[in-house]
This record gives sequence, structure tokens and C-alpha cells, in this order.
Amino acid sequence: MSAVARKTRRAVGAENASLKSEFVAFKTNRIVEVASRLFYQSGYSSCTLDNVAEQLGVTKPFLYSYFKNKEAILAAICEVGISEALAVLEATLAGDHKNHRDLLAEVVRQVGRIVIDRQEYVVVYQREMKHLSADDHERILRLRHSFDHQIAELIREGIEAGEFREDTDSFVAVWIGGLISWIPTWYSPGGQRSADDVIDQLVTAALRLAGAEKPTN
Amino acid sequence: MSAVARKTRRAVGAENASLKSEFVAFKTNRIVEVASRLFYQSGYSSCTLDNVAEQLGVTKPFLYSYFKNKEAILAAICEVGISEALAVLEATLAGDHKNHRDLLAEVVRQVGRIVIDRQEYVVVYQREMKHLSADDHERILRLRHSFDHQIAELIREGIEAGEFREDTDSFVAVWIGGLISWIPTWYSPGGQRSADDVIDQLVTAALRLAGAEKPTN
Repeated sequence: MSAVARKTRRAVGAENASLKSEFVAFKTNRIVEVASRLFYQSGYSSCTLDNVAEQLGVTKPFLYSYFKNKEAILAAICEVGISEALAVLEATLAGDHKNHRDLLAEVVRQVGRIVIDRQEYVVVYQREMKHLSADDHERILRLRHSFDHQIAELIREGIEAGEFREDTDSFVAVWIGGLISWIPTWYSPGGQRSADDVIDQLVTAALRLAGAEKPTN
Repeated sequence: MSAVARKTRRAVGAENASLKSEFVAFKTNRIVEVASRLFYQSGYSSCTLDNVAEQLGVTKPFLYSYFKNKEAILAAICEVGISEALAVLEATLAGDHKNHRDLLAEVVRQVGRIVIDRQEYVVVYQREMKHLSADDHERILRLRHSFDHQIAELIREGIEAGEFREDTDSFVAVWIGGLISWIPTWYSPGGQRSADDVIDQLVTAALRLAGAEKPTN
């Protein structure tokens, strides 16, 4: 085989592998999406894997090739909101911002958008977390703590930079997390307040809690 | 029968009636308490009325003489937190306070104490509200709206009185309700923060949200 043919075969191989992993991700996401909707509507305890398989038009063994059991699907659902929140938090922290106030506002705005977009996943997490295995529960709690910890750090830095009020306890990060987490419980798409209004108000509230409500520039 | 005998008999009758209604209240409360603990631990769907009866050492017909069905017990559990919150809100509003800031602080302090004391009831409500009948769901929502509405009114009056910042949207009442409602999800008795610390921080947070963090006197 010529060097070119070998290279081509390698490239095709790599492409197939990448396509395969895309298929896997696609199928995994579809399972999580459909299961989340069913758990949201009927409750985790009342849903069986048969219900999930039927809804997807697949067999139960197909599900088992992607998830060990029903609890593993629940864990995947519960992780969606906090994983995406951590990803935008870390991307935002790595970007350029003129001050801590803008940074906090931007993170809260983006995470608020995630919990609105992922409303059902977040509600399933809040309702059904007691059904998680101890390991999954612990792992998701660690992600939440990492989020709170990084927000607390941002607030401490904002205080040191003289942008946030000195008498702000950095534990306020947990209260800000509470405001964000509470949205899916009361917000209703198509209700009186639009998602944009809710997010604007969330940002205002978070800045007030952090003692940073006034622009510093 | 002499007038005295008749009077005594009436008094005894009234006493019996009052004792009887105390017994009823006591038994109703015990059923709600035990069912709340079971629903909290195992989930509403996984618990049967047989489990509740067994835990109380009574028969199922005994339960049916107090509650129509399992959903009626859930409704009673779900109503505890908001009913008690409304009662202290209304008692506090009817009392004497030197200003709106103190009034808001006092209401939030007392309601914070209720959700900590009633933690399991509040969590059962948040997790299991989807199992409420439409009527019960609606009735409890109305109680919640009444609470939010009265807090919003208090904030509007505080703004008019020049105590709270003018740029405060009275919708902030819903965010304050969110802070309070979120506590049972993350607060752990015997954890790092004492109930008193959590309540102090809650009051500070609520005053900041309302734009009323500085004493006005």
C-alpha cells in the first residue's frame, strides 16, 4: 500500500470513529431527553425502562447498551444543568471582562438561560435526587460545590478590588445559586414574565446580593 | 333537672366537644406528620396508605375517617409550610413596627424559621406537588400568591415611605420567596451553618434584594 493510501485509510478510519462517537452522543442525548420528559411528567418511580424504550421505539437491550440501569439515566439527566452551568462559568471566567461586576452579571445571565432552557432536567433533579445512588449524588454535589466555590471566589476578588461592598459574606454565592435554581419551580414559559425579563431581574438580584448593584465605571 | 345541673351538663358537653376537636386535631396532625416522614424518605408514589397505617399502628379505615384518600394527606402536608407562613405574615403585619425595613426583616426571619422547622413538609411539597389534584394545587398556589402579593405590597409601601430604593421592582417579592423556599433543599441540620446563621443571612439577603439593607433610623 502506498503512503497516500495508508494515510487515506487512516483518515477514513478516523472519520468513521468520529462519526461513530457522534452517533453514540446523539443516541445518548435522545435517551436522556425522552427519559427526562417521562420522569418530569409521571415521576421517576412511576416510569419503567419499558416506558422509555417504547417512547423511543427501541428495545430495552438497546437502552442497556448505553446505560447500566434506570438510575444511570436519572444521573445523566441530573447532571445536565450543573455541567452546562460549570462549562459556561469556566468559559466566562477564562474570557476578558473589564471588572468583576460584569463578570458576575455575565455568568448569572448565561446560567439563568441554561436553567430556563433545561427547565425539565433541573426540576427532575430537584424532585428525584433522592433516587440517585450515593456515588452519583456525591459526584453531582461536588459539581454544585465547585460552582458555588468559584462564584464565592469571584465575589471575594470583587470585594478586594473594591467593586463589591466590603460587608458582603462570600457565602452569598449559595444564595445566588438558590435564586437561579429556584427559577424552574415557578417560571412558566408563555406566562406573564418572558424569559428575558426573568433573566434581567435575576441579574439585578444577584448583583444586589453581591453588593455590586452599581456600575463601577 | 335544676338550672345548675343543666348548666353543668352544658359545660361538660362543651368541654367534651372541645376535647373531641382537640383529639381530632391531634390525630390529624399525627397522620400528616407520619405520612410526611414516609413520603420524604421513600417518595409519595412508593408509599401506600397501608404503610402509613402500619407506621401509626392503626387500620386503614381509621385513616379514611380523617382523610378521603392518599392525595388528601399529601395536600395537608403541602399546605403546612405556606399556611404557617401566611399566619405569621398576617400576625406580623397586624403588629407594631417602627418602619417597613424592620417589618420585612421580622417577617422573613419568622418565615425562615418555619421552613427550617418544617423542612420535610416543604421538601415533600416541592418534590410531590405534581401529584396534587388540580383543586388542591390551585388552592395552595393561591396561598403562595397571597404571600408574595402581601410582601410585594410591603415593598411598595417601603419605597413610597422612602425607606427602600426607588429602583426596586416589587416583583422582588417572588425572589425573596425563592430564597426562603430554597433553604430546605440545601440546609442540613447539624451541618456547617447553624439555623440561626442561615436565618441571619436570609434576612440580610432579603433586605439587599428589597433595596433596604441600611437601617433607616
